[in-house]
Amino acid sequence: MRVLGVVVEYNPFHYGHLHHLREAIELVKPNYVIAVMSGNFCQRGEPAIVNKFARTEIALRMGIDVVFELPTVYAVQDAGGFALGSVGVLHKTSVVTDIVFGSESGDLEFLQKVARLLTHQTPEFKRAFRVHLKMGYSYPNARKYALMDVLSSEVEKLSKSNDILGIEYIKSLIHYGSNIQPHVIRRVGADDNDETFRGKFSSASAIRKAIREGKFDESGEAMPAVTYEILKREFDAGRGPVFWRDLSFVIPIFRKMSRADFERIYSFNEGLDLRFYEAARATGDLQQFVELVKAKRFTYSRIRRAILHALFGFEKGMIEESNKYGPQYLRLLGFTNRGREILREIKKKATIPILSTPSLAEHVIQEALKKTEEGKRNFRINPELFRWQLQKDLLASDIYTFMYPDKAQAIAGMDFREPIQI
Amino acid sequence: MRVLGVVVEYNPFHYGHLHHLREAIELVKPNYVIAVMSGNFCQRGEPAIVNKFARTEIALRMGIDVVFELPTVYAVQDAGGFALGSVGVLHKTSVVTDIVFGSESGDLEFLQKVARLLTHQTPEFKRAFRVHLKMGYSYPNARKYALMDVLSSEVEKLSKSNDILGIEYIKSLIHYGSNIQPHVIRRVGADDNDETFRGKFSSASAIRKAIREGKFDESGEAMPAVTYEILKREFDAGRGPVFWRDLSFVIPIFRKMSRADFERIYSFNEGLDLRFYEAARATGDLQQFVELVKAKRFTYSRIRRAILHALFGFEKGMIEESNKYGPQYLRLLGFTNRGREILREIKKKATIPILSTPSLAEHVIQEALKKTEEGKRNFRINPELFRWQLQKDLLASDIYTFMYPDKAQAIAGMDFREPIQI
Repeated sequence: MRVLGVVVEYNPFHYGHLHHLREAIELVKPNYVIAVMSGNFCQRGEPAIVNKFARTEIALRMGIDVVFELPTVYAVQDAGGFALGSVGVLHKTSVVTDIVFGSESGDLEFLQKVARLLTHQTPEFKRAFRVHLKMGYSYPNARKYALMDVLSSEVEKLSKSNDILGIEYIKSLIHYGSNIQPHVIRRVGADDNDETFRGKFSSASAIRKAIREGKFDESGEAMPAVTYEILKREFDAGRGPVFWRDLSFVIPIFRKMSRADFERIYSFNEGLDLRFYEAARATGDLQQFVELVKAKRFTYSRIRRAILHALFGFEKGMIEESNKYGPQYLRLLGFTNRGREILREIKKKATIPILSTPSLAEHVIQEALKKTEEGKRNFRINPELFRWQLQKDLLASDIYTFMYPDKAQAIAGMDFREPIQI
Repeated sequence: MRVLGVVVEYNPFHYGHLHHLREAIELVKPNYVIAVMSGNFCQRGEPAIVNKFARTEIALRMGIDVVFELPTVYAVQDAGGFALGSVGVLHKTSVVTDIVFGSESGDLEFLQKVARLLTHQTPEFKRAFRVHLKMGYSYPNARKYALMDVLSSEVEKLSKSNDILGIEYIKSLIHYGSNIQPHVIRRVGADDNDETFRGKFSSASAIRKAIREGKFDESGEAMPAVTYEILKREFDAGRGPVFWRDLSFVIPIFRKMSRADFERIYSFNEGLDLRFYEAARATGDLQQFVELVKAKRFTYSRIRRAILHALFGFEKGMIEESNKYGPQYLRLLGFTNRGREILREIKKKATIPILSTPSLAEHVIQEALKKTEEGKRNFRINPELFRWQLQKDLLASDIYTFMYPDKAQAIAGMDFREPIQI
């Protein structure tokens, strides 16, 4: 039996996603497809355009059998943390046999070589990395140039975001000692960051931009009818679209925070704490805030993610624990009738518990602790970490719904909905 | 030498304020007039329509010689805390000889009788008060009915907000053992809470409502030309008008707070913590939030103030200390040439230091501690309380400016401006 795992955001689901899913299915010929999906906030440090349940519904209608949520603590980290969380979820199901991801180079062997080098860093690499960081390069660039020094110029390929993420997926597979087989599909069509609307071949960024500019109807061309209809339903109900600019309420929150408060938060190093502290006082405009924080070594994505880390209170220690031990639960967002079968398998084999609703969390933790004691199949959770990760998912949702255009709809507690069944 | 002290908000300064000021001057015939004024937030639990420096400028042009800021920790408390702060500032200057305040009854003797009764509460009064609270009445109503039981039906006068505040001023004079002579002026014209625009005789609430409804030009009729011009200047610069509804960013902040977090905050008792916790989750709309919190024993003003207490982090213990020891500094917002003379006197005689800019705070504290040690003229500050009160003023300003309509103007650090000199 083969089970395909895919890591997705579907923000929103478009033809490029459909194409990728079909190619992956053709390549692996799986019995089931499991997706781990970002919840209400995405890796670019932005809220998703519609909430996770709406996006799950689309995913299930488009061919995914089971959707698990990537816990927020991973969903809004850089490529490394994002991969540790998403590969962690797929690995810990114990049923996923293959992962397929997009790649600009399409060169799996090369990505694996780089991943091994980064995992078992040679002193030569470490030295080169430090030198480039000191020269003021951002973390990803310093790493790229260090790799160029150590490997070969071939590494120029690594400026592409999917390849960078691919390397992190492979590193995560090594981290978990996973037997999941990775595959790459060469990326075609629009670049993720290409905001130009290109009809059927538009990127998710371009679609979101079109919606932001009031061109939702026109943007329908770039997405399957299912996506369009569910987005329309959500927008009509006042539950979207949600945009990054809706986060401007973080500024008074940041004005309440001292420099020491920032320092306690993950990703606040290299002087980012001072830049946040000062920028929050220098403007009330979110875009201008980001421009004021911006520096050579802080990319826009990193700044947007750091905004969320501070907003959600991602303390350094807990993120480090999360990255070390991986996700503590399989938060089930939805499944199809076919998905029900593989869910039964997961329930038997997974090394962390399935969580179908947070209202059952304490019960699930107690059951999990019993199983851990019985030493069953490497079953293991850390209750404190479980609660912390879940609490951050709940908080992220409660902050997300506040951004709904219709404030009367902006109700908290979305997570207490049952998984979607199709 | 007679020095008149007045307690004001001037939100904004209108003909009623001018009338009151002239009557007070006629009554006391003072050499100087000192005002203690709410800063950027007012006693109704709302941000002021324009910032404290703009309002100070108006006050100085309209006949006030010196304006001190009422520290935020008092400005947004109920009548009792508001009076302890404002009378505290006037008393601690050691130069104020007379206070004049508005009163619906105009019966100073009666207000003094009630104030004495409330200060030296008889067991009979305490019992009656508890009974009415238990019946579900709000704090002010329970107090009123207890007084009715103990005094006489005459006490029906006490349903009027100025009389209630007047009693608190007198209680505060007793609290500080002050020799300041209180006077009352019978209130005429519009009720504070009357939102109907009545031309020249409109209340501040009515003026703010007119501005909120886009009728600033028409509202000019209700205020001296100086007020209109300075408001216009501020609005044109994008620094106002600031409205209560601009505070809706408190909702995601409240969604971050646990019930225990609310419980640590002043005024969160009688179940208010649970109501806040739940209401913040039930809506994203600020007005609806207040409606959900509303109950018989929680007045709208109390809820609006509690919102600010939670936003600013007014821990119970520090408010209790503040109410016990009073203000720790005389924050100078502005003065006229005439005011300069009385300021020289205050510098010699006051029992707490003058603070002309927060950048001098640590220097001022050290000087004050030296004077305290030398045992000069009852000079006394508590450095921890000083820093805490000042920090809350700075935070209140930084949150206030975030609400400016022009977010590029929404810069923090307003307090580091020097006092206005006219």
